[in-house]
Amino acid sequence: MPASSTDAKRPGEVALPFDPADRAEASLTFIGRIRSPWSKGEGPKNVRTAREMGCDAWIELDPAYAAGLTGINVGQAIQLIYWVDRGTRDLIVQTPGHADGPRGVFALRSPVRPNPIALSTVLITSIDGARIGIDATDAWDGTPVLDIKPWIETIDAPPHWRETS
Amino acid sequence: MPASSTDAKRPGEVALPFDPADRAEASLTFIGRIRSPWSKGEGPKNVRTAREMGCDAWIELDPAYAAGLTGINVGQAIQLIYWVDRGTRDLIVQTPGHADGPRGVFALRSPVRPNPIALSTVLITSIDGARIGIDATDAWDGTPVLDIKPWIETIDAPPHWRETS
Repeated sequence: MPASSTDAKRPGEVALPFDPADRAEASLTFIGRIRSPWSKGEGPKNVRTAREMGCDAWIELDPAYAAGLTGINVGQAIQLIYWVDRGTRDLIVQTPGHADGPRGVFALRSPVRPNPIALSTVLITSIDGARIGIDATDAWDGTPVLDIKPWIETIDAPPHWRETS
Repeated sequence: MPASSTDAKRPGEVALPFDPADRAEASLTFIGRIRSPWSKGEGPKNVRTAREMGCDAWIELDPAYAAGLTGINVGQAIQLIYWVDRGTRDLIVQTPGHADGPRGVFALRSPVRPNPIALSTVLITSIDGARIGIDATDAWDGTPVLDIKPWIETIDAPPHWRETS
């Protein structure tokens, strides 16, 4: 049984009356693992912090999927999608240390969420078979990888942001 | 049994020797549905095309998750993550009509992939309870929603792109 967050809440936090993990409607497979210097419970707060710290990080793709890298190049930006299941998925309102009060999970990048999918944009620094070097990650060593996508400005940047910057 | 892509391949396309759907390692729940004018097999090619066409689109969040919207505002950009299972997940090399030859799935935004997670950055145009208006979507009406995240430049834009634009 996964840990429940109902017994470890901060002021203002709200748990769902059910565990989203018990409502399985689709299944994921792990296509590889992120390798990083970070271990469980320790590591940078997010990918920006990780980039500032500098670190040796890579994706260890399951060799069965290596043909899927055809057309991916060093220097390219990708959307790295990974699975950050911390055991609790039911905390719908959270009070992070950095915020000035409780916030909905959809207004936060917290790893504790109904579907614990994490996402960051990183640069490919090397490709050696099924080993893909990346410029930074906030993921703990061994974090399962779900998907890799090319970053495309017209899909992945807000329209107003493109216009004004 | 899901449809297999092994019997409908274009030149150069390669299928995995297994179906990723048979290797379930984690489960997803659907937190809502995308409502759009697009029906199965018909719709814009991507979110850029959808934005150019203009359309009335919204997220119908399961009311159980509505408290998770606290702190989300109209005008804000979000990462919308949705599930685009077309029945086949095994096509590791694909030959899209727009490409000049076969490409690995991780170099494409194709909905046919080992984990059929789709992702686009959209603007919130309205919030009315659990109904969230968005400025555009390429998703068919009824597409399951997996997650909503605030778009954050330092996590979601490539570093070099920020520097040069």
